[in-house]
Amino acid sequence: MSKKNILLTPGPTPVPEDILRAMAEPIFHHRTPRYRKIFSSVSERLKKVFLTKNPVYVLTGSGTSAMEASTVNFHSAGDETLVVENGKFSERFTQLAKAYSLKPTVIKVAYGEAVRPEQIAEALKKNPAIKSVCLELCETSTAVLQDIKAIGAVVAKTEAVLIVDAISGLGADRLETDAWGADIVVSASQKAIMLPPGLAFISVSEKARKKMEKSNLPKYYLDLKLYEKAAKDADTPFTPALTLVVGLEKVLDRIESEGIENIFKRCAELGTFTRRGLESMGLKLFSKAPSSTVSAASLPDGIDGEKLVQVMRDEKGVALAGGQGEMKGRVVRIAHMGAITKKDLEEGLRVLAETLHEMNRHSEAAGRRIS
Amino acid sequence: MSKKNILLTPGPTPVPEDILRAMAEPIFHHRTPRYRKIFSSVSERLKKVFLTKNPVYVLTGSGTSAMEASTVNFHSAGDETLVVENGKFSERFTQLAKAYSLKPTVIKVAYGEAVRPEQIAEALKKNPAIKSVCLELCETSTAVLQDIKAIGAVVAKTEAVLIVDAISGLGADRLETDAWGADIVVSASQKAIMLPPGLAFISVSEKARKKMEKSNLPKYYLDLKLYEKAAKDADTPFTPALTLVVGLEKVLDRIESEGIENIFKRCAELGTFTRRGLESMGLKLFSKAPSSTVSAASLPDGIDGEKLVQVMRDEKGVALAGGQGEMKGRVVRIAHMGAITKKDLEEGLRVLAETLHEMNRHSEAAGRRIS
Repeated sequence: MSKKNILLTPGPTPVPEDILRAMAEPIFHHRTPRYRKIFSSVSERLKKVFLTKNPVYVLTGSGTSAMEASTVNFHSAGDETLVVENGKFSERFTQLAKAYSLKPTVIKVAYGEAVRPEQIAEALKKNPAIKSVCLELCETSTAVLQDIKAIGAVVAKTEAVLIVDAISGLGADRLETDAWGADIVVSASQKAIMLPPGLAFISVSEKARKKMEKSNLPKYYLDLKLYEKAAKDADTPFTPALTLVVGLEKVLDRIESEGIENIFKRCAELGTFTRRGLESMGLKLFSKAPSSTVSAASLPDGIDGEKLVQVMRDEKGVALAGGQGEMKGRVVRIAHMGAITKKDLEEGLRVLAETLHEMNRHSEAAGRRIS
Repeated sequence: MSKKNILLTPGPTPVPEDILRAMAEPIFHHRTPRYRKIFSSVSERLKKVFLTKNPVYVLTGSGTSAMEASTVNFHSAGDETLVVENGKFSERFTQLAKAYSLKPTVIKVAYGEAVRPEQIAEALKKNPAIKSVCLELCETSTAVLQDIKAIGAVVAKTEAVLIVDAISGLGADRLETDAWGADIVVSASQKAIMLPPGLAFISVSEKARKKMEKSNLPKYYLDLKLYEKAAKDADTPFTPALTLVVGLEKVLDRIESEGIENIFKRCAELGTFTRRGLESMGLKLFSKAPSSTVSAASLPDGIDGEKLVQVMRDEKGVALAGGQGEMKGRVVRIAHMGAITKKDLEEGLRVLAETLHEMNRHSEAAGRRIS
């Protein structure tokens, strides 16, 4: 049996062949009408993926660069910020806040769980000086989806801005940026946007823009005022990762042709399919708030999750993700966003069941030998 | 006559077809032995391009992200820095210093000229509190090459570190990072490294590393201590632009197969060839310190440089660069680095001469009609 090549990691996700080909066309210069036309088009059309009428800026960087942009552009020295920590990526908001001398208040939520909107309301009531609320749409490390709609309604009543990390979730889990009051939404290219990593995105509401005017934190490469100014000429302040922007135009064709509502529906169905598959092999789902982006399952005792991921990848050609941080070796995570198909998931789940079975047999055999 | 497709801009430069193809291979995950092997290889082999034994970190970002890394990692609040300004890109060092509350002393050098090492010695003598000297190897906007060897010898005698922006120059103009005492060298992927934009590089000497330990400026995405730590596992702290790193491995094959000394020689010869060509059509060279990366010529009065560049690009398929900032419309710039060939330059120069001739005739005819 020949080795498969199935990529089910929650970023990078598979890049469709026609998009890879578009990015391999001869390169050209970015300060030209040709590039400005593409850049202007993708900047406008990204809004439809974010479901916003506000500007979406395109940065050359990893998703974390856009998270940092959300810290340095909308706060001033000593500002209080509220961070919901429920996994590795949300914890980055706290690290960023500390790096820039903000004062983070942390709501610690058990891994696998989502914050309750009442917890946010309570924290904001207790400390009206809080200037921002930072959290994940989908916490990639735990496969937890949070209720941005309800949280947005809470935050909208206050002076604080709502900062949502949708790096993995955007374009898979429903996020109605404007309608739900997500003031600043950050995302990146290598998840549901199905491009290679290297581009990051950030949307800015009018409420957030006012904070941006007053922010006194030091910044240059991530100074969104420079991006705002350059955008008037369909330009960026610094040389853009232009092959990725060329790919982005093709991705947006694809997204528009399917329709964002259909995409949310498809990812939700694939998520349900994946979780049923995981449960049917006797695994326990890790997340109590399932996401359309990625699903996670706890592994039985005696199964080494690191080894499982390695065997599946190196011997069977199916790449899925293990656990991160505290969950290392204890969970598997399977993405169902972007260009990942039902067929990929069927195969991936089949190979997972098969490998778990082999590892179980092996550990039982080892158990017998020892006893 | 069919339209050509010749790219002679000083970044992006042409990306060889085999490298474009390598980057269009199916994507894979970066936290894998497969990626670590590539990343570890490129990190080691980049040192041979920098001519350093010190670490070279790979950032996902435009060249400016590495310039900012040179500001935020090696200074502390209120530090004095000396900046040589002789064009648009060197001016960015001053903007970065101001953004991070450093105290820049500026040596203003006329556009088209290089700083004299004595000017640096004098400034450092006058103000021994200066912690760093920032300048360009090749100032892309003026095509001026600076004498890093002599300047390095001056700076090495002091406590200051030498920060060299070699974004365009690296791999075209000779730069002996270690031997010349360039403590921090920044570069990027889309110039002589002949990749699309999206990766930035920064090398760090032992003298610089000591400053890094003490630096108290805020940073996170560009915090080189995080890169240093991750590098121990052939990893990066944040998701890398992995298709570009895959391309970089192929580029390094190519660079090693030609040999860096042969590349310096070739770019120098192509530079001489280009400048002779420009002079032979009656143009005056703009730079008094010619570079092997890019050459610039002043345009005669009555020739609109913006129009010239546009006609050559849109009607004749030859992309070269006009002037930036103060020099807008007044110069043309032609790159001769990376994968640009002598044949490209011959054609580019021929089309430039032809277009200048046409524009001259047109303006003479217009002159006659008016008189």
